[in-house]
Amino acid sequence: MSDQHNQTRRQLIKGLGITGVAMAAAPALAASPSAEQGFDREYDIIIIGSGFAGLAAGIEAKRKGFKKVVILEKMPTIGGNSAINGGLFAAPNTEMQRRDGVTDSVEAMVQDQLAAGRGIADETLLRHVAEHANEALELCIEAGAEFHPYLQQLGGHSVPRTYQTSVSCGAGITQPLLKLARKEGVEVITRANFLNFVTDAKGGVAGIEVEHGYYYERKLAEGKRERLKAGKGVIVATGGFAQNVPLRQSQDPTLTDEIGSTNMKGATGEAMLQMFRLGGVPVHLAHIQSGPWASPDEGGFGYVSNYCIFNFPHSMAVNRATGRRFMNEIADRKTRADAIIENRDAQGEAQPPLLITSYEQANKHPNCAKVLRYNVGWKFDTLEELADHFGTPKDALKAQLAEYNGYIEAGEDKQFGKIIADSNRIKVEAPFMVVRLWPKVHYCQGGVQITPDAEVIDSLTGAPIPGLFAAGEVAGGIHGVSRLGSCSIPECMVMGMTAARTLASRKA
Amino acid sequence: MSDQHNQTRRQLIKGLGITGVAMAAAPALAASPSAEQGFDREYDIIIIGSGFAGLAAGIEAKRKGFKKVVILEKMPTIGGNSAINGGLFAAPNTEMQRRDGVTDSVEAMVQDQLAAGRGIADETLLRHVAEHANEALELCIEAGAEFHPYLQQLGGHSVPRTYQTSVSCGAGITQPLLKLARKEGVEVITRANFLNFVTDAKGGVAGIEVEHGYYYERKLAEGKRERLKAGKGVIVATGGFAQNVPLRQSQDPTLTDEIGSTNMKGATGEAMLQMFRLGGVPVHLAHIQSGPWASPDEGGFGYVSNYCIFNFPHSMAVNRATGRRFMNEIADRKTRADAIIENRDAQGEAQPPLLITSYEQANKHPNCAKVLRYNVGWKFDTLEELADHFGTPKDALKAQLAEYNGYIEAGEDKQFGKIIADSNRIKVEAPFMVVRLWPKVHYCQGGVQITPDAEVIDSLTGAPIPGLFAAGEVAGGIHGVSRLGSCSIPECMVMGMTAARTLASRKA
Repeated sequence: MSDQHNQTRRQLIKGLGITGVAMAAAPALAASPSAEQGFDREYDIIIIGSGFAGLAAGIEAKRKGFKKVVILEKMPTIGGNSAINGGLFAAPNTEMQRRDGVTDSVEAMVQDQLAAGRGIADETLLRHVAEHANEALELCIEAGAEFHPYLQQLGGHSVPRTYQTSVSCGAGITQPLLKLARKEGVEVITRANFLNFVTDAKGGVAGIEVEHGYYYERKLAEGKRERLKAGKGVIVATGGFAQNVPLRQSQDPTLTDEIGSTNMKGATGEAMLQMFRLGGVPVHLAHIQSGPWASPDEGGFGYVSNYCIFNFPHSMAVNRATGRRFMNEIADRKTRADAIIENRDAQGEAQPPLLITSYEQANKHPNCAKVLRYNVGWKFDTLEELADHFGTPKDALKAQLAEYNGYIEAGEDKQFGKIIADSNRIKVEAPFMVVRLWPKVHYCQGGVQITPDAEVIDSLTGAPIPGLFAAGEVAGGIHGVSRLGSCSIPECMVMGMTAARTLASRKA
Repeated sequence: MSDQHNQTRRQLIKGLGITGVAMAAAPALAASPSAEQGFDREYDIIIIGSGFAGLAAGIEAKRKGFKKVVILEKMPTIGGNSAINGGLFAAPNTEMQRRDGVTDSVEAMVQDQLAAGRGIADETLLRHVAEHANEALELCIEAGAEFHPYLQQLGGHSVPRTYQTSVSCGAGITQPLLKLARKEGVEVITRANFLNFVTDAKGGVAGIEVEHGYYYERKLAEGKRERLKAGKGVIVATGGFAQNVPLRQSQDPTLTDEIGSTNMKGATGEAMLQMFRLGGVPVHLAHIQSGPWASPDEGGFGYVSNYCIFNFPHSMAVNRATGRRFMNEIADRKTRADAIIENRDAQGEAQPPLLITSYEQANKHPNCAKVLRYNVGWKFDTLEELADHFGTPKDALKAQLAEYNGYIEAGEDKQFGKIIADSNRIKVEAPFMVVRLWPKVHYCQGGVQITPDAEVIDSLTGAPIPGLFAAGEVAGGIHGVSRLGSCSIPECMVMGMTAARTLASRKA
């Protein structure tokens, strides 16, 4: 196993499993098809993408009285990337916060996110989402979503404000929302691949062109094509482009196809690119977030990611060669990802650092058993065994552990300023659990610019493009340089609901 | 004058003179006009923009044998933003480096730029430009451009490799290039406002739509419209979007219309936005550079900017309230701009720091007299007078000056690691010159993605868009997070020449 841990960076990254796909299947079109050519089918609202944003938009559209609402999903299953995310949901002023006596506010949540955004987040959008986050959470609960009975305090958040689905993944929300959407009368079609917008004479969006019977793996562009009319509007909720390797490399040449991603393969961003062709403003595409909780020992999001998110507050991350801490374990994602990739040997090869947790604590997370079973994390009875296994200097590690536990006892981390909430004053003690850390491409902060009404702005006129709305990860600029964990689900759902409400407000 | 220096940040920024323009005049078009509608006029190559990139492209196109080459400029004067830049030109292995015995290489120049680019610069493009930079410099000299007889070492460069025009501004290059372009037979038309691309049936660029007789100040969109055919291709060389306030704010909400810019008013980026509508890939738009050498006491690029660029290597920058240095005076631009805006009082109001130089040295730059005449810099016989004037603590300032001069003597800056070249071992001594520093929006690292052949890539297919080329600041991704000073002119000229050469190589 020691050999396994000494693999070079290149091997390490090659072995991560999921690699990006080369290029989108849709052909380049000089101009959008025109509405004058007629339609095969008519809807009031067409929603592209079946993740958190699309499902919330669909439910809200029906509840606002729209008759024909359809959600199109290019993949064979519903939920997109949302279904495989961590199921973490941040909201202020929630029921569990009241129960636990946590003092929180919309403003506190906005300020935490602004700090992570490093000066370029969109404060108006952040406030709009934070104001409606609890409402979206309650929609999940109404739909039947179940949550762990405890709050978590994720990196960059000043208080515990994060719910997590009891299945510890996003499907714990997308499945109930799907059921509710169908009950409300939303039509949902899978293997329906968005090709292009259909525009009217004034440049507004009148509908879309879609390919039915699409098989992602086979890259078929031969399915049945239809032109669908959107009488009221199109809501794009297609997520990010973490799996579009040429596009992410155009923004960051280091994000080659050797770098893993937590995203499902369909996250390739074609609808976003088509919005740019209509005049949508590209915002912050260069800000691509890597998850600091990922493991180099498994593919994709895996089991370790959620395990780490849960355990970071009461764990110690150390450099394997020195045995010393190198970061605040609950700093924001970018700060941690940047710190983790500094762990290299003299030749510059990756040396994934170790996250050390008391087994007793670690095992409180449901993934702990799976982490052990799949050999992507290891249990040690003593610190000596642990140090031997990873070739870490024993005395240094022992000293670091004593120092860290001293900070926990004192309630103040003098090394890296980690916030030690009362609920997290937990020392790291034997027996120990260890996982290795190396970031994976996780989230695209960039996308198309939207207003707080979820409208897409024309880059030349500054006015909304008629009939076009966007919500969720496909929208850019909300979070700035770095999104805080558990702030994506509220954003997706609130902006999806907002798009439907904006359309409803214009119906009259 | 003390009152003047105590103005609040808001006042300070409001007073900068040039503010951004609201929005581009061109109407939003759902689709590009089609070539089937015919043309009013025919060219081989249409070049949009008359700065360094456009002029170099025009000259090279004629020299490669193209018959009808036209440069279109929307403003009433030639040269665009290039004409008012600092006229600084970096190249490795130049004649002045040989004369001075400076050891330099293409690789060294590339490595310096990669460091400033913070991991996301385009190494292939940087190398292509560095390899051809000296050739572009020699074209300037052939055209009649005159340069100061000394090399400068700008921030972030590891050796002196920067030429500067003897008039210390870009017009010292654009004027000779314009003369040469006309001599070679390039047609040049001012007040010709690019509106849109004309595409052929396959989505390639067949020509453009232009408005003649355009008056920027009056925002007329009523001039005579023509459709111009580009038989071989269109080269977009329109520069950045530093003066497009809504667009720059979409990327960075803090860059409001209260923030000054060094750019001429026409730098609003419409042609870049139209390229995105054709499918060009937006790259790094969020990376907008502020010039760390700008003064809050004058509008635009002014006199102080060039004065500072020349003087930084042998000057000391200090916080006004503490008298202490706060940065390496020749770090890269982003490092310095970030450090400068940290100079604030307890209320967060801007406290522009002071750049202190020996008058004897400062006066070697031609702008020194103008800086004094226009009251945007001040001369003091003693350090006491200087400290009194700005309310800076005398003892601290005196101690800092002695410390700094000690580093100069020793050849090593133990405070901030400033590289002290032998030619810059110059102490700061009485009488003193002082200017104040506050960054201004200067350069857009972002733009449209190009290949090393200056082709524009289609975001969906990854293939070049037929007939479309881009060069200069309008292209994005080359420099990454931060461009080094004096690397813009070589980039613009080399990529302009490259676009013409790519077209020529396909003629056969």
